[in-house]
Amino acid sequence: MTDVHMLESTADSAIEANAAPVGIDLPAMGRTARAAGRKLARLGTDQKNAALLAIAAGLEAHAPEILSANEQDLATARDRGIGDASLDRLSLQGKRLAGVIDDVRQVATLPDPVGEVIEARTLPNGLRLSRRRTALGVLGVIYEARPNVTVDVATLAIKSGNAVILRGGSETLHTNRALIAVIHDALRQTDVSPDSVQFIASTDRRYIGELLKLYQYVDLIIPRGGQALHQFCRENSTIPVITGGMGICHIYVEPSADPAAALRIIHNAKTQRPSTCNSLSTLLVHEQIAASFIPQVIAHLGASGVTFRADPAALAISHNDPRVTAADDAAWDTEWLALILGIRVVDSLETALDHIETHSTAHSEAILTQDMASAARFVDAVDSAAVYVNASTRFTDGGQFGLGAEIAVSTQKLQARGPMGLRELTSYKWIIEGDGQTRP
Amino acid sequence: MTDVHMLESTADSAIEANAAPVGIDLPAMGRTARAAGRKLARLGTDQKNAALLAIAAGLEAHAPEILSANEQDLATARDRGIGDASLDRLSLQGKRLAGVIDDVRQVATLPDPVGEVIEARTLPNGLRLSRRRTALGVLGVIYEARPNVTVDVATLAIKSGNAVILRGGSETLHTNRALIAVIHDALRQTDVSPDSVQFIASTDRRYIGELLKLYQYVDLIIPRGGQALHQFCRENSTIPVITGGMGICHIYVEPSADPAAALRIIHNAKTQRPSTCNSLSTLLVHEQIAASFIPQVIAHLGASGVTFRADPAALAISHNDPRVTAADDAAWDTEWLALILGIRVVDSLETALDHIETHSTAHSEAILTQDMASAARFVDAVDSAAVYVNASTRFTDGGQFGLGAEIAVSTQKLQARGPMGLRELTSYKWIIEGDGQTRP
Repeated sequence: MTDVHMLESTADSAIEANAAPVGIDLPAMGRTARAAGRKLARLGTDQKNAALLAIAAGLEAHAPEILSANEQDLATARDRGIGDASLDRLSLQGKRLAGVIDDVRQVATLPDPVGEVIEARTLPNGLRLSRRRTALGVLGVIYEARPNVTVDVATLAIKSGNAVILRGGSETLHTNRALIAVIHDALRQTDVSPDSVQFIASTDRRYIGELLKLYQYVDLIIPRGGQALHQFCRENSTIPVITGGMGICHIYVEPSADPAAALRIIHNAKTQRPSTCNSLSTLLVHEQIAASFIPQVIAHLGASGVTFRADPAALAISHNDPRVTAADDAAWDTEWLALILGIRVVDSLETALDHIETHSTAHSEAILTQDMASAARFVDAVDSAAVYVNASTRFTDGGQFGLGAEIAVSTQKLQARGPMGLRELTSYKWIIEGDGQTRP
Repeated sequence: MTDVHMLESTADSAIEANAAPVGIDLPAMGRTARAAGRKLARLGTDQKNAALLAIAAGLEAHAPEILSANEQDLATARDRGIGDASLDRLSLQGKRLAGVIDDVRQVATLPDPVGEVIEARTLPNGLRLSRRRTALGVLGVIYEARPNVTVDVATLAIKSGNAVILRGGSETLHTNRALIAVIHDALRQTDVSPDSVQFIASTDRRYIGELLKLYQYVDLIIPRGGQALHQFCRENSTIPVITGGMGICHIYVEPSADPAAALRIIHNAKTQRPSTCNSLSTLLVHEQIAASFIPQVIAHLGASGVTFRADPAALAISHNDPRVTAADDAAWDTEWLALILGIRVVDSLETALDHIETHSTAHSEAILTQDMASAARFVDAVDSAAVYVNASTRFTDGGQFGLGAEIAVSTQKLQARGPMGLRELTSYKWIIEGDGQTRP
């Protein structure tokens, strides 16, 4: 669960048009989900956990059918000449399905956010006022190639008391249908209605448009895919959208930084999993250490296959190293998602902050320094979801932050920022208990 | 400040087209607001409070000009034959302006939400993780006839570290211009840039449309006006919108309720300020007490000028009382905002819950009972922003709930539900401090 990331591909396959096999009545689906959600919202923790364990058992029992459906999707993808990275995302083969099932059982162990009393006090007039955490209602989740998202999102929704309408990508339609059939079968034996997990069994793009307008029934839209999908949702939705998933992440290195630790952190942030949104895109190096430090970066990361896009100062320092080329105008606004690193020399912390303010997607940024004043200034000034001092940006993740699981990483500021766990899928209501109070 | 309500008129004058006197470059306004907001977000509490006190002093010093501009708007409104209620909303005459100034000084006394550490812990790998409350950035507020909103919103925005773009109604354009001139003059002597408070000095409707698309610069849209304005914003905005302000509020009376307290609460909820969104629209009475209790309601509220729309059972009980007429199909979905009350007899708590689920706008509902199990069931089942036991719905208000002030009342579930104070105008960032940690 810890590697569930919003950005799954840059192809935005989820918003490609596809043939519509059948007419789907989306408002009816919304009404059904709303009604199921209202029941689910009031179930106890044990009832929800029992449903999750039933899903896990069902997935185990029906693994052969699921893997066979997945093989069908993989075969279609291979016939279409889809690349290895995309095939990898599609696959539930090997130990993948067991990992998905483990994640379901892990969600069952997480604390239930619903019903938590956030605050409680007695007002001067004797009214007892409290805020109690509630489910949101119905989530709409639009995603792309990874079939594990189907299970992850369904289980996080159930645990947080929310119904969900899922719309997955065309590449995984067979796998998703098999997974949903197993989930529905499992739920039939539990107190959670199968209606709580709705699946749009069509990849016709018009259903995305319809889903985005169902504000009477859907409380939150979570797109999980490339930037075009996020933009499409933001521009077409009448429901609040959690945008995010795109990370142009920066590390700024000060002269006071420990060079060995800095190299280790930069190497980790760039190479540990370059396809993720919290991996490093641009390295900013203070000019005082540029001549000594940048060659070390090139040597250390270059040995792991990284190539570099350098500003003129960094290019001059790199002495015609073939792995280093000049950064073009677009370089600083590019999320590489690959073993490529932008490098720029800056004359001060303030210049680094200006660069970050201009080019960041407000995901994750780090400063490497031993200077407390610089660290404090950086933390204060950088307006991103996660701001680091002397650590790798790769930690921006629900699992790493101790949320247990994440449904998305938000780079907007409403409702939730950064990794979103179960708590971020809730709202609250005010409860006011009195003994006849009226307003003067 | 405690009576600032989102629903100001049903005329939705703010979205009427008007002549555009000049071209306004809204993206430039957005950029300016964004830059000012980033500075404002990092100012200290003392700096922000000093700015609020300067605004209060400026409003006092320039009261004659403000009242004269307001008289101009009032004269225009009178010439147009606008009703007394609308004229009342428009007016800053009498003690009104002094009240607005008092509210500014009160906001200066409220705790500063920005910088609050929401949580902090050390992870097993030694990373020190915390969440710190931050300003949202830039608010866009679209409102109608009340000129006090200009000052209220500007001061709440400043205190919460947010820049704001204001778009007021055409009826108050002269008053608003005078207020904004005073606010800008006052801010010039302080650390808060006048650019933090942007005002769209045109009532051309196209600027609302442009504002709603400025997602690069604006983080949250808050409409304050009638239902049509809220719907227009939700359907046209690419920025998250706080919808709310419309309240079809219910009180359900059980047989166990204390009749004297029930009459007092119902009278208060209906008559204390019928034009507000937290006033009572529909009374649901259990059939066991209908024959005795409904005539008491009619007598007690009727004496205050209330008339009634009754279902067949309640109508039969009212014995041709001329103040009681048959409720038509639309009655249960009507927010009366006047001395009119819908009455329906129900056979059980569950029927009352079904009625509320079908007709409520999820604002405020109350149960009057001495039965703890019924109260618990009602509080659990009703999915509204505020759920009351034995108290008037009129308390749903930032001031009454102890938030100090409110910028809006949200009836949606994202970011904030119910009254929104300073804290609800913030986001947070994750801060992660380490000593070289990398992700395994």
